[in-house]
Amino acid sequence: MKTQTKQADRQNPLDSLNDLLADDMRAVNALIIENMQAEVPLIPQLAGYLIAAGGKRIRPLLTLACARVYGYQGPRPYPLATAVEFIHTATLLHDDVVDESGERRGQKAANLIFGNQASVLVGDFLFSRAFQLMVKDGAPDILRILSDAAAIIAQGEVKQLTTAGNLDTTLEDYLDVVKSKTAALFAAACEIGPIMAGMDRSAAAAMCEYGMNLGIAFQIADDVLDYSADQTRLGKNIGDDFREGKMTAPVLVAVAEASPAERDFWRRTIAERQQKDGDLETALSHLKQHRALEAGMTLARQYVDKARLALTEAPDGPIRSLLDELAQFAAERAY
Amino acid sequence: MKTQTKQADRQNPLDSLNDLLADDMRAVNALIIENMQAEVPLIPQLAGYLIAAGGKRIRPLLTLACARVYGYQGPRPYPLATAVEFIHTATLLHDDVVDESGERRGQKAANLIFGNQASVLVGDFLFSRAFQLMVKDGAPDILRILSDAAAIIAQGEVKQLTTAGNLDTTLEDYLDVVKSKTAALFAAACEIGPIMAGMDRSAAAAMCEYGMNLGIAFQIADDVLDYSADQTRLGKNIGDDFREGKMTAPVLVAVAEASPAERDFWRRTIAERQQKDGDLETALSHLKQHRALEAGMTLARQYVDKARLALTEAPDGPIRSLLDELAQFAAERAY
Repeated sequence: MKTQTKQADRQNPLDSLNDLLADDMRAVNALIIENMQAEVPLIPQLAGYLIAAGGKRIRPLLTLACARVYGYQGPRPYPLATAVEFIHTATLLHDDVVDESGERRGQKAANLIFGNQASVLVGDFLFSRAFQLMVKDGAPDILRILSDAAAIIAQGEVKQLTTAGNLDTTLEDYLDVVKSKTAALFAAACEIGPIMAGMDRSAAAAMCEYGMNLGIAFQIADDVLDYSADQTRLGKNIGDDFREGKMTAPVLVAVAEASPAERDFWRRTIAERQQKDGDLETALSHLKQHRALEAGMTLARQYVDKARLALTEAPDGPIRSLLDELAQFAAERAY
Repeated sequence: MKTQTKQADRQNPLDSLNDLLADDMRAVNALIIENMQAEVPLIPQLAGYLIAAGGKRIRPLLTLACARVYGYQGPRPYPLATAVEFIHTATLLHDDVVDESGERRGQKAANLIFGNQASVLVGDFLFSRAFQLMVKDGAPDILRILSDAAAIIAQGEVKQLTTAGNLDTTLEDYLDVVKSKTAALFAAACEIGPIMAGMDRSAAAAMCEYGMNLGIAFQIADDVLDYSADQTRLGKNIGDDFREGKMTAPVLVAVAEASPAERDFWRRTIAERQQKDGDLETALSHLKQHRALEAGMTLARQYVDKARLALTEAPDGPIRSLLDELAQFAAERAY
């Protein structure tokens, strides 16, 4: 397992895409730093804490790649990729308040250091700044796509809140949450690429489809990793979702196949959130018994296939190849 | 004092403006209800709780009035007034998380009933929905004005956070917070009116100036009321700002003129936030002694004068008269 993990690290297509678009990403990173500046020092301080922590920058990279893959050469993707990253960062900040998560990107969650209030308000600032950047670009289609995505994300986050602790959550409910809270922004980040390149609706629809399915696969794999990740490597707290009673793919599988005694266990720990020492270990053994992590990754791979199919619409070349590898990578992350 | 209050109620120019623009406000209220609908029931439930509580709707009313006063007859102000109200409501929801305030508009603050998480996320939804409405209108100037206002509001809220508990806060710091967290949205709500009416930059600048100064006066008066309001009438918790260590106009005045013993009192209660029973009463007596509430209202009236002066640019008529009365009313509210 360890060796497999290391190999995956070496061949990570995100890194390759970052290398291929290195000049572009430097421009985006400069704009990210520039636009999180504000007169009030706490804003760059808190935003910088999260942004400098070095997330994967996958969303701005998708915006760049989906413009460049269609041959667009100009600088328009820079502020828009920045806007996409800011919408994501704002969501993380507000999610921290929501999640009471201990770690984020291998660091302590911002709200534990700066407080809930600052996390909410700096999130609002980044969100507003994202809109300012979009408005400066001014293309009506792009404004519509990104503002629609923002509204869908918020709805998904609220829906997740209402499904947490509900053992009757269906796979459809779960996928609906995944699509809105995560995949909608992946889809929007990709869809605006061909629009900048002046392509027609069918190219935009194909990249939207690619991003949506990539995002779904990515989130399902993330939910599996929440029960299996190597904490030091990924900087995630294993069991966060369990502690918050989130109904994610692995739990859905295990609950569906639970014996009466196991169902009692899930009711107590997830529905009633009465958890004690050793419960996470018991949960992990139930997941293992029902091969729930494998089932999660199988589900993720279905969306990888859909993403790869949609991608065939884009012009062939090194960028498309890496986007294709990225989709495969989404469901190959170690578990 | 009581009689004065009742008289002010009867002559409230907000009500008169609401009557004059009753058909318009009905259309706006319908759009507000329509646009807070979402697939996830918690969203209209929580948003409706706050919105149905019947705020003063002063901001959407300003957008309507500032379009109509320049003779614009069409329906464009409806979605934009809705967007303005949603930005305000989102701010209130996020402020509740921030403030841990017990009451809001005479009801329990939403976060106490629905939880911090839901308040943050439903706020995000309303904020995104506001942007969707603006994007549908599509006028670049209006998009710029409203998205700039949103970013300024967030900065103001963060700055307020960093001045709380700081006895060295200057009047300039305080006014800067007031301008950004409150007056910027008043200004934007007014500025877009003449733009819809196709007026030139000078009309927009004048209405922006009117809204900015009205908003400043309104907020200063609100800060005074926080130490003087009749709770059953206004549905405000007297002393909220004191408990949160906010450096508002009355406290600035009292701290500036404090004896060494009084300064110790403010240091303990505001800077160190070590409060005990009877402290609010002591604070009120210090404010009274230094006539700090009167000083606050005098400051507010300076901005009322500026607002009224800016308003003279608008065409004369019943709407302008009521906007003028509204400015005067802002600093006449009972204290």
